[in-house]
Amino acid sequence: MASDPSTALVVTDLLGIFVFAVSGALVAVRKSLDVFGVQVLAVTTGLGGGFIRDVLIGAAPPAALQDWRYLLVPVAAGLLVSVYHPAMVRAERMINIVDAAGLSLFVVAGALKATEHGLGPLPATLMGLVTGVGGGIVRDLLAGLVPVVLRGGLYATPAAAGAAVTAFGHELGVSTVVAATVGGLVCGVWRLLALWRNWQAPMPHGLGPA
Amino acid sequence: MASDPSTALVVTDLLGIFVFAVSGALVAVRKSLDVFGVQVLAVTTGLGGGFIRDVLIGAAPPAALQDWRYLLVPVAAGLLVSVYHPAMVRAERMINIVDAAGLSLFVVAGALKATEHGLGPLPATLMGLVTGVGGGIVRDLLAGLVPVVLRGGLYATPAAAGAAVTAFGHELGVSTVVAATVGGLVCGVWRLLALWRNWQAPMPHGLGPA
Amino acid sequence: MASDPSTALVVTDLLGIFVFAVSGALVAVRKSLDVFGVQVLAVTTGLGGGFIRDVLIGAAPPAALQDWRYLLVPVAAGLLVSVYHPAMVRAERMINIVDAAGLSLFVVAGALKATEHGLGPLPATLMGLVTGVGGGIVRDLLAGLVPVVLRGGLYATPAAAGAAVTAFGHELGVSTVVAATVGGLVCGVWRLLALWRNWQAPMPHGLGPA
Repeated sequence: MASDPSTALVVTDLLGIFVFAVSGALVAVRKSLDVFGVQVLAVTTGLGGGFIRDVLIGAAPPAALQDWRYLLVPVAAGLLVSVYHPAMVRAERMINIVDAAGLSLFVVAGALKATEHGLGPLPATLMGLVTGVGGGIVRDLLAGLVPVVLRGGLYATPAAAGAAVTAFGHELGVSTVVAATVGGLVCGVWRLLALWRNWQAPMPHGLGPA
Repeated sequence: MASDPSTALVVTDLLGIFVFAVSGALVAVRKSLDVFGVQVLAVTTGLGGGFIRDVLIGAAPPAALQDWRYLLVPVAAGLLVSVYHPAMVRAERMINIVDAAGLSLFVVAGALKATEHGLGPLPATLMGLVTGVGGGIVRDLLAGLVPVVLRGGLYATPAAAGAAVTAFGHELGVSTVVAATVGGLVCGVWRLLALWRNWQAPMPHGLGPA
Repeated sequence: MASDPSTALVVTDLLGIFVFAVSGALVAVRKSLDVFGVQVLAVTTGLGGGFIRDVLIGAAPPAALQDWRYLLVPVAAGLLVSVYHPAMVRAERMINIVDAAGLSLFVVAGALKATEHGLGPLPATLMGLVTGVGGGIVRDLLAGLVPVVLRGGLYATPAAAGAAVTAFGHELGVSTVVAATVGGLVCGVWRLLALWRNWQAPMPHGLGPA
């Protein structure tokens, strides 16, 4: 659909923001917050990861403060959830799938943006991870939940792997499109398999599952 | 009293910091923290919103790290509360009124500072909101409370409205003094009416109050 | 061992990161998190304080995103704790001592870096304190604990004192080595005495201990 890479990048970015904003708004609904609480969690979850990344790599103000579409998307997601949340809660399996897609888009975009700002592949991997999981951490801290990256169930490991494939692929001279595609697939497929098979990360030596 | 606008701006800024620092220190007293915990919550509540805004709009280091008065004010507020907190707790109604004034000052100042840094009216509205509620969010996260913006009782809605009036008024060419005054009044009067009449924001479709 | 001051500075910085990363990883083990949760808390605790400082003083991207050793150290600390945590939990007294050393290193380094970026002695004291306690605050927020600076037991007071001695000594023309050494000793010795004698900070007027 998108006629050039830059349009494609903006579209995927906005799609990722939308998906994460929906996840934040659904948490707000489950916590019985009012419609403004829904908006706050939608916007912070959708934009939080990118904000933290941009501030850390010295790219402030973030893109989301310079392009009004980046703000309208999470607000629209919050309004949709405020009205249609009963149907969305029933569609939780579909939301998990879309969330895995959003995670993949964000870790790839975060890792690439960090390399563009001159960071090496290891810090770029960390920045990809922060972009992918940062919004969910802010959402969970505000809502009084255990942050998603600290729960079991392999959320951050696929994110770190996808970011590493993207960043080190770029470092080794692989074309950006190939590095991003393979990185995104590693993250998304691993995450979906973990959800489907209920995979868990290993515990520290000598400890059983929580 | 103030002889020029810039003096007036600094005075209002310091007054807002003082009020929010008092609110942070009072939370610390209620949590039975020691005098240093009182100082930590006073400083983070008084300065937190402005710090987050300045980092996001690319204005680091924040003014509070370049002008020693901005640090002494919350420290003094923390000391006052450590000594006189019994009288202040009794004066909670008065503190709510002063807090509404502090919120109005902060959302207006935050929205104007963002427009000065080249942000459009919609992001500037978000930055005004962040300036007004950021310190209270940090205070509540540190103290283990539900953040003020997620509780019922119309705190963030008046803040967002006041910031929007200021930012869009400025965008439409209204004089800064008028835009700031009307924006601050919208925020402060709405907040006080919500406190007085115990107004609540609407709930998402089909959900009753928490 | 180190042949010049800059090598000594990097070594002490990495040592401080290692110690704080170990403390973060041990919290993760106690919370029965999986090995990736251990890594997340190790990295955020080891690097968090410096990240917050660098973002606030306008020094983004932080050193830890420009030098891969700063990332490998907390990852290695997390792996060590995942394997050897039973022995480390038994060595909690030793870890408290090493943590006091890490705190001293971080507050001195944070205060000096802030003065190098042109901040006055009072803001530099705050930045030294933020560097020393920031990682622990992030660790405790993520783990759902009361932040270390708000608990009793004199953690932040020695940190603030050590940072103040360093920053004001530097301001008064004392040589950097002397200011840093005295500041670090004030922080470390006070912290160790507080641990040994179970000192508590005073409570606000009229309140008993929690």
